[in-house]
Amino acid sequence: MVTKTLSGAGLRGQSAGTTALCTVGKSGTGLTYRGYDITDLANHAQFEEVAYLLLRGHLPTQTELDHYKTQLVGLRGLPESLKQVLEQIPADAHPMDVMRTGCSMLGNLEQEQDFSQQLAATERMLALFPAIICYWYRFSHHGIRIDTYDTSEDSIGGYFLKMLTDETPSDLHKQVMHCSLILYAEHEFNASTFAARVCASTLSDLHSCITAAIGTLRGPLHGGANEAAMAMISQWQTPDEAEANILTMLENKEKIMGFGHAIYRTSDPRNALIKRWASTLADSVNDTHLYAVSERVESVMKREKDLFCNADFFHASAYHFMSIPTSLFTPIFVMSRLTGWAAHVFEQRENNRIIRPSAEYTGPEYRAWQSIDLRQ
Amino acid sequence: MVTKTLSGAGLRGQSAGTTALCTVGKSGTGLTYRGYDITDLANHAQFEEVAYLLLRGHLPTQTELDHYKTQLVGLRGLPESLKQVLEQIPADAHPMDVMRTGCSMLGNLEQEQDFSQQLAATERMLALFPAIICYWYRFSHHGIRIDTYDTSEDSIGGYFLKMLTDETPSDLHKQVMHCSLILYAEHEFNASTFAARVCASTLSDLHSCITAAIGTLRGPLHGGANEAAMAMISQWQTPDEAEANILTMLENKEKIMGFGHAIYRTSDPRNALIKRWASTLADSVNDTHLYAVSERVESVMKREKDLFCNADFFHASAYHFMSIPTSLFTPIFVMSRLTGWAAHVFEQRENNRIIRPSAEYTGPEYRAWQSIDLRQ
Repeated sequence: MVTKTLSGAGLRGQSAGTTALCTVGKSGTGLTYRGYDITDLANHAQFEEVAYLLLRGHLPTQTELDHYKTQLVGLRGLPESLKQVLEQIPADAHPMDVMRTGCSMLGNLEQEQDFSQQLAATERMLALFPAIICYWYRFSHHGIRIDTYDTSEDSIGGYFLKMLTDETPSDLHKQVMHCSLILYAEHEFNASTFAARVCASTLSDLHSCITAAIGTLRGPLHGGANEAAMAMISQWQTPDEAEANILTMLENKEKIMGFGHAIYRTSDPRNALIKRWASTLADSVNDTHLYAVSERVESVMKREKDLFCNADFFHASAYHFMSIPTSLFTPIFVMSRLTGWAAHVFEQRENNRIIRPSAEYTGPEYRAWQSIDLRQ
Repeated sequence: MVTKTLSGAGLRGQSAGTTALCTVGKSGTGLTYRGYDITDLANHAQFEEVAYLLLRGHLPTQTELDHYKTQLVGLRGLPESLKQVLEQIPADAHPMDVMRTGCSMLGNLEQEQDFSQQLAATERMLALFPAIICYWYRFSHHGIRIDTYDTSEDSIGGYFLKMLTDETPSDLHKQVMHCSLILYAEHEFNASTFAARVCASTLSDLHSCITAAIGTLRGPLHGGANEAAMAMISQWQTPDEAEANILTMLENKEKIMGFGHAIYRTSDPRNALIKRWASTLADSVNDTHLYAVSERVESVMKREKDLFCNADFFHASAYHFMSIPTSLFTPIFVMSRLTGWAAHVFEQRENNRIIRPSAEYTGPEYRAWQSIDLRQ
């Protein structure tokens, strides 16, 4: 078998398949979901509209959207066995490990028997994921067993905030959640989506694909950037302090999280969209410094390195202003990206060939067997 | 960004990285682990020797092997919380979903905090995986809570058989398990290993990588072939009946599981090695037809289609002769391939770039936003 040696590691710039879901950086900056610009979607749509678009192929009419939201609300409520599992997970676990385990366990309880169930299985996950993380969080941290059948909020973002805080979320917070979940919903062949497609290519079940994707998103080079950005900016009390520290970090060649991107070259179209909400939220909580610190970091990175904020950077302060614990930032990403992952699994199944690349061998030449008593 | 269009789907024949672990089909038929021929390893080694070779880089001396086996025995015993989780999984769950969930849950309880713990975390899994599947199986099917701290068997294969049956396994059965686990241990960039490497490339934790791999192996195009082969051959009572049915299946263009391979062109070097044991086991149980049926299927497939048995085909009858339930065949694959998966994760971490390919876009052109009340 002839193996082509490719120019770059990590399959960068290599096509690994086809997709009708998304373009990333087509004109250098843009992002589209099924042809619609992310700016239009984030400014005008509800997350459930975008989920419908990704999973069902077109934007819903008002009747379809109303029905869809009612359907998703009706799918809430964790199975008892899943709650039992979540109660076994300690408070110091990594929240992404909780999501991964919750999704995997669900696959035991509600197995996708054949691919005709893929949409139903996805929508059940869409309805349950906010409760998986919140049930564990509140049980392990506060000893409270929340009622996950709660139907008081009709949006996924609102349900998440309600499960997390037990308070009715404000309209502002629900709007921000729509925008945030839309921005994170889909991004072509990123690593977690590609992992989901590799898994799907063996014709494995949907829960395996999504579990693989969650585990892949967990890595600090992928989903953890907004948490890392939060950890960084929360250290600084003033913009000047932030600037001085960033300059030192750059001098020491430390990585500044939340900047630059593997595909985008000049800007990340998602940044302006979440930044606007971070600013509004800052005003709403009378923030004295975190937003100003974030803006200063942005301008210093632009000036010093010509680097732009990616989607993650202003998500950090936005989530923080909504009192979301930093460790739960990446699980929110999961609730959203689930839609993109599943849509890619559907595509892979439609036109499948098992994803089985080759490798360049760098190991030892053939070695003769040596019986154990002769080894030294 | 320029995207190269590759010749084939599924990245077939495309190099996606480097490895020092394995060559597959280098001379058209061969398989080596770190330079050693699979035939030598399967005929002479214990599985723990091969695990040591893959994970630690060289074949152990007798002292090293003795110490290693003692160490692995000492790592047995499922944590209480993991047992609680397994007890929540119903008897009709897919055993690969159980493995995936057990591995994921373990990651919550014994998190890999940094990469210096990767070898220890792998060896803990190596010691625990047989008990994960057997604890669930015997609790859900027989209502029995087995003692997973059992140290009466010093090999992983023997421990598995003991946990499964509560009987001391015969020397023959333990030998077969060594051979089988060695044959399944490693196979270059197959889909499940590649999924593990994609996950590792985001610098995620080991349990995420292995969980992703288990989910990927679950697919019928990958790990499920020996189960499918068993389901097929167990329908036939005589070689003539088998031949007649195979010919009909071929006429109807049905897929015959356990034949051919994505990489090997003339034979699978693992087939002769397990076939020999299947024959010995057939004698040991006074088999009247299953082995003969298997041999006839092999010869018909060769004659009619010039197709050869892969590693999976004679594994079916071999496992069956050891009274292993068919649904547990693929979990045995997991116990073994864990070593290859983990060794690949170590390699990916050593020389990492995030695996993020591109895609060819086949979707709609840019579409203008349409407000929801205007949609039809």
